[in-house]
Amino acid sequence: MVADVTESIPHSVWNGWGDPAQGHPLSEHALSYLKRELALDSVELSHPSVDLSEVSVSASALDERVIAELRAIVGADHVATDDVSRIVHAGGKSTPDLLRRRAGDAARAPDAVVKPETNDQVADVLTLCATEHIAVIPFGGGTSVVGGVEPLRWPFASAITLDLTRMNRLLSIDTESRTATLQAGIRGPAIEAVLAQHGFTLGHFPQSHQQATLGGYAATRSAGQSSTGYGRSDELITGLRVETPSGTLTLGGHAPADAAGPHLTQLLLGSEGVLGVITEVTVTITPRPVEKSYGAWAFPSFEAGAAALRELIQDTPAGDVPEVVRLSDVDETQANFELAGGRTIAALRRYLALRGVQHPSLALFVWEGGRGGTRGRKRRCGRVLRAHGGVYVTGRPASSWDEGRFLAPYRRDELLTRGVFVETLETATSWSKLNATHDSVRDAVIGAIGSPCHVQAHISHVYPGGASLYYTVVAAMEGDGLEQYRRMKVAASEAIVAGGATITHHHAVGIDHAPYLEAEIGGLGLSVIAAAKRELDPVGILNPGKLITPQKAETIG
Amino acid sequence: MVADVTESIPHSVWNGWGDPAQGHPLSEHALSYLKRELALDSVELSHPSVDLSEVSVSASALDERVIAELRAIVGADHVATDDVSRIVHAGGKSTPDLLRRRAGDAARAPDAVVKPETNDQVADVLTLCATEHIAVIPFGGGTSVVGGVEPLRWPFASAITLDLTRMNRLLSIDTESRTATLQAGIRGPAIEAVLAQHGFTLGHFPQSHQQATLGGYAATRSAGQSSTGYGRSDELITGLRVETPSGTLTLGGHAPADAAGPHLTQLLLGSEGVLGVITEVTVTITPRPVEKSYGAWAFPSFEAGAAALRELIQDTPAGDVPEVVRLSDVDETQANFELAGGRTIAALRRYLALRGVQHPSLALFVWEGGRGGTRGRKRRCGRVLRAHGGVYVTGRPASSWDEGRFLAPYRRDELLTRGVFVETLETATSWSKLNATHDSVRDAVIGAIGSPCHVQAHISHVYPGGASLYYTVVAAMEGDGLEQYRRMKVAASEAIVAGGATITHHHAVGIDHAPYLEAEIGGLGLSVIAAAKRELDPVGILNPGKLITPQKAETIG
Repeated sequence: MVADVTESIPHSVWNGWGDPAQGHPLSEHALSYLKRELALDSVELSHPSVDLSEVSVSASALDERVIAELRAIVGADHVATDDVSRIVHAGGKSTPDLLRRRAGDAARAPDAVVKPETNDQVADVLTLCATEHIAVIPFGGGTSVVGGVEPLRWPFASAITLDLTRMNRLLSIDTESRTATLQAGIRGPAIEAVLAQHGFTLGHFPQSHQQATLGGYAATRSAGQSSTGYGRSDELITGLRVETPSGTLTLGGHAPADAAGPHLTQLLLGSEGVLGVITEVTVTITPRPVEKSYGAWAFPSFEAGAAALRELIQDTPAGDVPEVVRLSDVDETQANFELAGGRTIAALRRYLALRGVQHPSLALFVWEGGRGGTRGRKRRCGRVLRAHGGVYVTGRPASSWDEGRFLAPYRRDELLTRGVFVETLETATSWSKLNATHDSVRDAVIGAIGSPCHVQAHISHVYPGGASLYYTVVAAMEGDGLEQYRRMKVAASEAIVAGGATITHHHAVGIDHAPYLEAEIGGLGLSVIAAAKRELDPVGILNPGKLITPQKAETIG
Repeated sequence: MVADVTESIPHSVWNGWGDPAQGHPLSEHALSYLKRELALDSVELSHPSVDLSEVSVSASALDERVIAELRAIVGADHVATDDVSRIVHAGGKSTPDLLRRRAGDAARAPDAVVKPETNDQVADVLTLCATEHIAVIPFGGGTSVVGGVEPLRWPFASAITLDLTRMNRLLSIDTESRTATLQAGIRGPAIEAVLAQHGFTLGHFPQSHQQATLGGYAATRSAGQSSTGYGRSDELITGLRVETPSGTLTLGGHAPADAAGPHLTQLLLGSEGVLGVITEVTVTITPRPVEKSYGAWAFPSFEAGAAALRELIQDTPAGDVPEVVRLSDVDETQANFELAGGRTIAALRRYLALRGVQHPSLALFVWEGGRGGTRGRKRRCGRVLRAHGGVYVTGRPASSWDEGRFLAPYRRDELLTRGVFVETLETATSWSKLNATHDSVRDAVIGAIGSPCHVQAHISHVYPGGASLYYTVVAAMEGDGLEQYRRMKVAASEAIVAGGATITHHHAVGIDHAPYLEAEIGGLGLSVIAAAKRELDPVGILNPGKLITPQKAETIG
């Protein structure tokens, strides 16, 4: 059996990611590279977060009668109105979310945190909140980076967060048909642990895996780092149970495919808590891999690497395609080399230069599967990669990435503390538009930041029709960073829309991408989702202000 | 390049399938087998269709003003109100459809047949019909076997059929991203012909391929005979343009995958003309295969064959899985052997008996793809099939099937003329429920027919999670056959629902399966589709009485 990449960590700290003890601070070498590259005055720990005790939270807007009714539904211990519980549920994990909370602002904390254990409790909470006109924000791992779990309340006077993490059990498994049904509040590592007892994996490892829940995967159409191999969440999920103010939706589960009208599962996937509360999820499961092979190839350009990836996914026998496919552009490769530093990197650069690769674009691959199979798959893919100018550079860069794959979010916390602005954003497009999109979004972000900055990108998911693009933006922080974020985000989103790419490949819509959804599905498409919402949530209590619901401008941060 | 299985035929005759000159009449040997097996009094040509001139059609309910307005939109030559045009569009190709028309009943013919050429013309026709309260029935190939193109009009006084076959062009092709956008009225053979010019195939070959249109594939979530390899229509289709009375929906086309909210493409796929008129379809295309390998294996039981298929699709490297997978149960295999007859079959039976296969369940496979690849794929799959008791019986049964794959519908016309009732129905379920479903549906049909009958089934599509089941029912015709059909259909549908299988794997819902859709998606699911319909078609003119719209009992046949 291969080593586990999945590991449970405590619920994230209120002002950052996960368990800070697990972070790996940047080296002196890396800090001096950053200082030079971004023309920083300082990389000292000059921008610490305020202390939890300094965070301001307004008084709960819920009266005692409603609190008592909520307690009657889910149990007295499972309705929290204390400041700490409310601050922990005050929003997601985007950079502006963290910047606000680190500055002591949790003004949008929910009035109560309610933790149901059963479908009926969820249904009863929705009925109560519809009657009492209280906004309900479904909350799984709380890892949204687009404002998806922000407790907006308008047009209502109060809001509760419905924390689903007590609903964390495997309900059934059909090993013959390779499906399992789990409660929606189960976190990534617990999914893997419970399926492993039966010899299976879900194979879904988004960056947020250690915190995020299955219901969150479903509500946001998440893609994981191994999705090229195992499929995205919206491919892995075949059935849903959804509680709504209008009743229960039970979707899928009759057959692996059907022609029984419109597929409502695909209407609820990506519905971001706006149409209902996902409480049970049926997924396709795969036997756990027993071996992995790693490989990294350096290409003479991002375009050459992308062409290689295209041939791999379009024309290589499907069984050979790696589970993990990542291609860093020249800027990301350069930064990774600089951050790593040392003699091995210097030797690698000389080796590549001798082979004509002056400005490498590095691709990482992981093949995982049955015993004895992965090496042959790697060998056959290697032929394709070499034909596109790829120079093999051992499996080490890929295995290192695999070992550290869940550490990246910790790095953001450190950078923010050092006064460095950092954010990520993503899109996807067809192969024929990929290179132009890569450049136009990068240029837009650089232009919007205005000051010295580093913008890098990688492809993390490939499809026969195209690929994703994932950008990381780093610059000196301007003031509180919020205006800098808005400027950068608008410029990137407008470049994405102008280029005809998707407004989001796997981060979902939330608040931040909502202004651009009309560009993706048209005004009539928005109206269709709104019509479904009126049917399922006539009072409009579910996650107001997200995805399609109009918001008063002053409530949007 | 492999031989073309796709061939254009004229538009189907009004009372049967395709071009009757292409049918292959049953042999004397086959007829005597049928007579014996079904205890028929006669297999003479005793039940001929009436002549076209004898078909009764009521006068068109549209007044001259409306006809003139329709002509102003699409051109005078493209609005037909003559009897023949109306009879040709009076319904689909289910057995009850044919029985009614063969008896001279085209009472439900539309009041006019309108043939638009552009998106704007479709939009203008919808606007006119919404204003004038005229039902609109979108019509592609007219091959529905569930009443999907029946021109029901209630609650309106008149109905037009919107024949989309003039909208038959390739609009754009992106060979780098392997997608093409075509108008929705293009028929199967024309799709293949136009993509072949660029070296590509859609790979979609439903039984109706020679007549059906791309828009019909989309509106019904059709599956084709090669869908195990190329994917179902709802997997191949990545984008849609849909004209609705409320405006135009333009869906998909930004990226191969996204997290931009609910996927409305999957709401419109399978919408059966109830939510809008699909006018453009974007599909994934594949390089045309250059070689085929055929193989047939006989299994000692249907259960053993199904277990082999399950291992093939679950655990064989994806690149090895055949494009076509079909497993006949013991009854279907027996009937095929009897119908073929001859010394080769007798020798084959002896050969199989010597190898312990007394009652064979025969599986056919076709591998197609790049040069030199298919034989290795067949060899590796053969190892899996043998491990489940499969005995190889050459490629001949599979290549014969391939050559004659589009002839089956002609056989029904001949059988009806000989006074033999014949109908097909289908479902799909998970692997763990497959054998029980196979038996319970068969038993229900046999029980409902009551008289000597032959019921056979095959698996035609396999998925990691399960498989389809396709039944053929043959018996002596009772009277006009319509009551016999209803009895059989109700019994089969109730058995399917009771077993938890899907009400339809690829025939869609139409009128015939509509009473069972609630069992599949729940009352609240129906309400969500109805809410989408109110948004897109507020007056309710689009294909009334199909999928979800309630109908007055007396209007349903």
